[in-house]
Amino acid sequence: MSDLDPEFRRHEIAHLARVELHTPDPDGTLWFFKDLLGMYETYREGQSVYLRGYEDPYQWSLKVTEAAQPRMDHFAMRTASPDALERRVKAIRDGNVEGNWHDGDYGYGKTFQFDTPDGHRMNLLWEVEKYQAPAELKSKILTRPSKKPLQGLPIKRIDHLNLLASEVTPTKQSFERYLGMQTRERVVDGEVEIGAWLSSNILGHEIAIMHDARGARGRLHHVAFYYGVQQHTVDAAEMFRDYDIKIEAGPDRHGITQGAFLYVFEPGGNRIELFGDPGILELEPDFETRTWTMADIDTATAIGGTNLPQETYFTYGTPPVEDPETA
Amino acid sequence: MSDLDPEFRRHEIAHLARVELHTPDPDGTLWFFKDLLGMYETYREGQSVYLRGYEDPYQWSLKVTEAAQPRMDHFAMRTASPDALERRVKAIRDGNVEGNWHDGDYGYGKTFQFDTPDGHRMNLLWEVEKYQAPAELKSKILTRPSKKPLQGLPIKRIDHLNLLASEVTPTKQSFERYLGMQTRERVVDGEVEIGAWLSSNILGHEIAIMHDARGARGRLHHVAFYYGVQQHTVDAAEMFRDYDIKIEAGPDRHGITQGAFLYVFEPGGNRIELFGDPGILELEPDFETRTWTMADIDTATAIGGTNLPQETYFTYGTPPVEDPETA
Amino acid sequence: MSDLDPEFRRHEIAHLARVELHTPDPDGTLWFFKDLLGMYETYREGQSVYLRGYEDPYQWSLKVTEAAQPRMDHFAMRTASPDALERRVKAIRDGNVEGNWHDGDYGYGKTFQFDTPDGHRMNLLWEVEKYQAPAELKSKILTRPSKKPLQGLPIKRIDHLNLLASEVTPTKQSFERYLGMQTRERVVDGEVEIGAWLSSNILGHEIAIMHDARGARGRLHHVAFYYGVQQHTVDAAEMFRDYDIKIEAGPDRHGITQGAFLYVFEPGGNRIELFGDPGILELEPDFETRTWTMADIDTATAIGGTNLPQETYFTYGTPPVEDPETA
Amino acid sequence: MSDLDPEFRRHEIAHLARVELHTPDPDGTLWFFKDLLGMYETYREGQSVYLRGYEDPYQWSLKVTEAAQPRMDHFAMRTASPDALERRVKAIRDGNVEGNWHDGDYGYGKTFQFDTPDGHRMNLLWEVEKYQAPAELKSKILTRPSKKPLQGLPIKRIDHLNLLASEVTPTKQSFERYLGMQTRERVVDGEVEIGAWLSSNILGHEIAIMHDARGARGRLHHVAFYYGVQQHTVDAAEMFRDYDIKIEAGPDRHGITQGAFLYVFEPGGNRIELFGDPGILELEPDFETRTWTMADIDTATAIGGTNLPQETYFTYGTPPVEDPETA
Repeated sequence: MSDLDPEFRRHEIAHLARVELHTPDPDGTLWFFKDLLGMYETYREGQSVYLRGYEDPYQWSLKVTEAAQPRMDHFAMRTASPDALERRVKAIRDGNVEGNWHDGDYGYGKTFQFDTPDGHRMNLLWEVEKYQAPAELKSKILTRPSKKPLQGLPIKRIDHLNLLASEVTPTKQSFERYLGMQTRERVVDGEVEIGAWLSSNILGHEIAIMHDARGARGRLHHVAFYYGVQQHTVDAAEMFRDYDIKIEAGPDRHGITQGAFLYVFEPGGNRIELFGDPGILELEPDFETRTWTMADIDTATAIGGTNLPQETYFTYGTPPVEDPETA
Repeated sequence: MSDLDPEFRRHEIAHLARVELHTPDPDGTLWFFKDLLGMYETYREGQSVYLRGYEDPYQWSLKVTEAAQPRMDHFAMRTASPDALERRVKAIRDGNVEGNWHDGDYGYGKTFQFDTPDGHRMNLLWEVEKYQAPAELKSKILTRPSKKPLQGLPIKRIDHLNLLASEVTPTKQSFERYLGMQTRERVVDGEVEIGAWLSSNILGHEIAIMHDARGARGRLHHVAFYYGVQQHTVDAAEMFRDYDIKIEAGPDRHGITQGAFLYVFEPGGNRIELFGDPGILELEPDFETRTWTMADIDTATAIGGTNLPQETYFTYGTPPVEDPETA
Repeated sequence: MSDLDPEFRRHEIAHLARVELHTPDPDGTLWFFKDLLGMYETYREGQSVYLRGYEDPYQWSLKVTEAAQPRMDHFAMRTASPDALERRVKAIRDGNVEGNWHDGDYGYGKTFQFDTPDGHRMNLLWEVEKYQAPAELKSKILTRPSKKPLQGLPIKRIDHLNLLASEVTPTKQSFERYLGMQTRERVVDGEVEIGAWLSSNILGHEIAIMHDARGARGRLHHVAFYYGVQQHTVDAAEMFRDYDIKIEAGPDRHGITQGAFLYVFEPGGNRIELFGDPGILELEPDFETRTWTMADIDTATAIGGTNLPQETYFTYGTPPVEDPETA
Repeated sequence: MSDLDPEFRRHEIAHLARVELHTPDPDGTLWFFKDLLGMYETYREGQSVYLRGYEDPYQWSLKVTEAAQPRMDHFAMRTASPDALERRVKAIRDGNVEGNWHDGDYGYGKTFQFDTPDGHRMNLLWEVEKYQAPAELKSKILTRPSKKPLQGLPIKRIDHLNLLASEVTPTKQSFERYLGMQTRERVVDGEVEIGAWLSSNILGHEIAIMHDARGARGRLHHVAFYYGVQQHTVDAAEMFRDYDIKIEAGPDRHGITQGAFLYVFEPGGNRIELFGDPGILELEPDFETRTWTMADIDTATAIGGTNLPQETYFTYGTPPVEDPETA
């Protein structure tokens, strides 16, 4: 059960590469991501459509699949190297977590698939096909894999993932132990950890885990896509309002991670966050986890005047579940 | 009871020039306006301090006076010409509204003082002393009366006023009839007019009147100060959060006037709006009043995700009054 | 030769309503305005296509007509009332300026057409057809005549016009004398007036006149379209860069009018300005004209680091003319 | 001469921690950094003053020292761990680069000091004293080491360093070889490498090296400080204009790194960059170096209309040197 020293282990995960969402309304969901958020379609097979933002480096960051219920099918993180992938798989197996190698999906090679303690399906992978733009989509900006499209208010790329968990701590610990990720911020309610924000690079977070007030397991709170400019969340709010997309909260800025947020529900029912500028970038290598308590929860949730709506923000996730008290 | 033809009357009022606020906490109120909002102090006499934003053209736009209760003492609008002032006074008197000429306050000449039907004390004036910056405060930008100061997040100038009224319609009509102002937008709840936004230039509004849910008369909802850039309302929210100023709502954008808002309470208890970009500029000379109903009140109040808080936004004004149901 | 008193005359012009541009590359020009700037096409006849921004209140603000050379065919200002139109026509005729009534173009009624002293063709009009959006284009924001489209980076509306003149002063004076417009700012080089910025409302300008360094008569410097948000000029610069539109200067902010600018050349060759926030809004009814000299020309032209390019900005206009020194 | 495998070596440097600037005008330089850029003074000793931005995590990021000439005395990077520091020192010594351990300066422990091949004095360190805000400066935002001050337009923290070098390639290679940093972007003029941008995390760069057109050795091009919001570079430009700080170029966005820039000269003569949002964040672990050529240098230098001024941007550095052609 040996593993790398933590000083090296903390860099083993490079970033969140992709997410697959299920939707009962594939036309609506694709209209949302393509027409409003300017994602490029790169592939289509069976009931699935593959999409990428104009700065996503690979063939896709989002797969939309028709299904009975809105939910996240899986997400995948890319490791920092091929060896890092082998080391992470070994660590997972040494921890007696079940998992299996799978053939790659479109544009990606083999992945190691396993579940978080709460039941979210996760993949680790190294092999990717870098996106190569055709001549008409090539950008003059060399770090940009393709031109910003002229459609809607285009997001740049996938940013992060927020998972609901029946218990936050075990899932948080599995990201720390097996993947070397670091908990940058957490929220406690008395003794109970009700939220954790983790990262493996200088981003404020790439994975968040929040307590599922419904007590359900393995649900999705939201997937976030990145604008890079806070004004674009303001522009997006106006677009969503006029094009009948339900805005849940924002634009505003969380105290946690200082991230500029806007939450909406895509037509299939999954909550999507539009993320403005990244907020805090944590350069300190020995940054100490910040712990928010209920005493400062107002600043934690929003720096501006937003009250995150109790009736949805802290209870709704996908797949939806009934309220145990009313069911 | 003759008056100018409406086509000329609509230009008789130039703009909102100044407001006097009472505060039971003058130190806190002055810290708010000077240290946080970067207003320049230009004069001080008795219990009053006179302030201006760096683009306010006259000696002051805000007078802060110590008093037992937070409230608006009066506001003043400047007419478009000396003759316009005479004509407006005649119209007011022809309408059997009581009013009197008063000597000028610091930096202003004589004013004609009268009350709105709901009891807000109003002044009309022409004579002003233009602010002349000393050498060290002169801006290189010739349309800017003084340098933007290096203190806090400076507002440019006073923007508009929102009055609470026990009945909206009579007060609205007095602004239309005597001052020639035009109602650009209104909100109706069934048959009852519960809000009106008026202007005498291309701004979306300079005077708003909203129904006072407490049934009180002559109260202030808020005074607004202008940033000109929506990002500055975001910056201000962060400042207010960290410097313990209560944020009521925003930053967000109203559907009404498309104005970018942020509402806070200054330490003395008056509600202050920080206004980002102006939103709609109405160039059409024959613009027809837009009427919002309860069916579209969500967009009317906010384009983004803000829910204006029922417990304060629609009931709190200054001076505060007790809730008749609990009193 | 009687006319209204200046105090009323200054409100006779409501705003700039429309411009017709000629282009030798109609496909390129239309791609620029429709695909990049998100203008709606409302009509098409002969060699002309009619366009409007999503907040332009009438049927069109821009008419694009195929022709041998890029140039402005004409522009039109709307008066504040039907009587104001009659009064302006009388004043023009009393001034022995030639002019004629013309039948309306699409969406507009009859216009009075005449030339500025420098030969720019101008129209005055009152009768307009207000744009009525079909159901699918109706915005929830009641002051917005149509939804913001999902195409490119949509401009809101036409903003202002900048004319080149062989001599600035006579053209400036004709706007003052016949139309009652006011000169807010001017630039002098020694004794010679080389620029003037005029307005009939609180906008910093709706008409600018700059000296034509080529000595030509009646040329266009640029037409400006309004974003309302400075960030959108930044976004537009990136779009123009990647979609091969030549950027001349900006984004930056002029000291004159404090307007946020970005200058590009549309594919037909006309210079177009994208205008961010409006900059100064002049509320003072007795605002005194500001005069910039060569000593402060740097701040006048740009507050940031932009050097307006001598080789184009001060010499290029449409129709293009040869440099007399090299011809 | 063994070293860590490159997959681990690339994470050995955590970030740029501090810079010491010399200035012949200490009063002017301190006014610039404290009054305009809102840096906090934390210490003062001899001819030196120590400053930090409100999100700098340690006691200081900038030391200003009175001296005959403007120049950079040294800069320091913090390693990712104490062991990483030992490993880097060993690699440097194994490479026969001279260097020595020095006692710490205020707020920092011992540092290993050596020169780049071009003669810039560099330090590596691990030991730091984290800044602990007194009660009145504590921020409610837990990732923020201190409140944003109410003075000027406060920068958050130090961002990056741009070095001039007589030859770019050897200096670039020393950062790669000894420190494990990666070259993200470079510019070549034919066969000659004239610029390189390096990073050890997902930032677009923390160290840049550009060819010194004067042929001098070891000079500074600029130090950059971070705003996090592009609008703040616009606000800063206006402040600099009115407070007589020379703006060299911007605000605009480089194609290289997509960084939002504004260049000015502090009163002592050093070039300072105000950096808006971070531009590209490179998440791909196997990102391939992008190479710009003279064919796309326009986009490389600016996405908007800025022409970086030849007479200063590509020749001026500190300490200033005479033009060899005119000397």
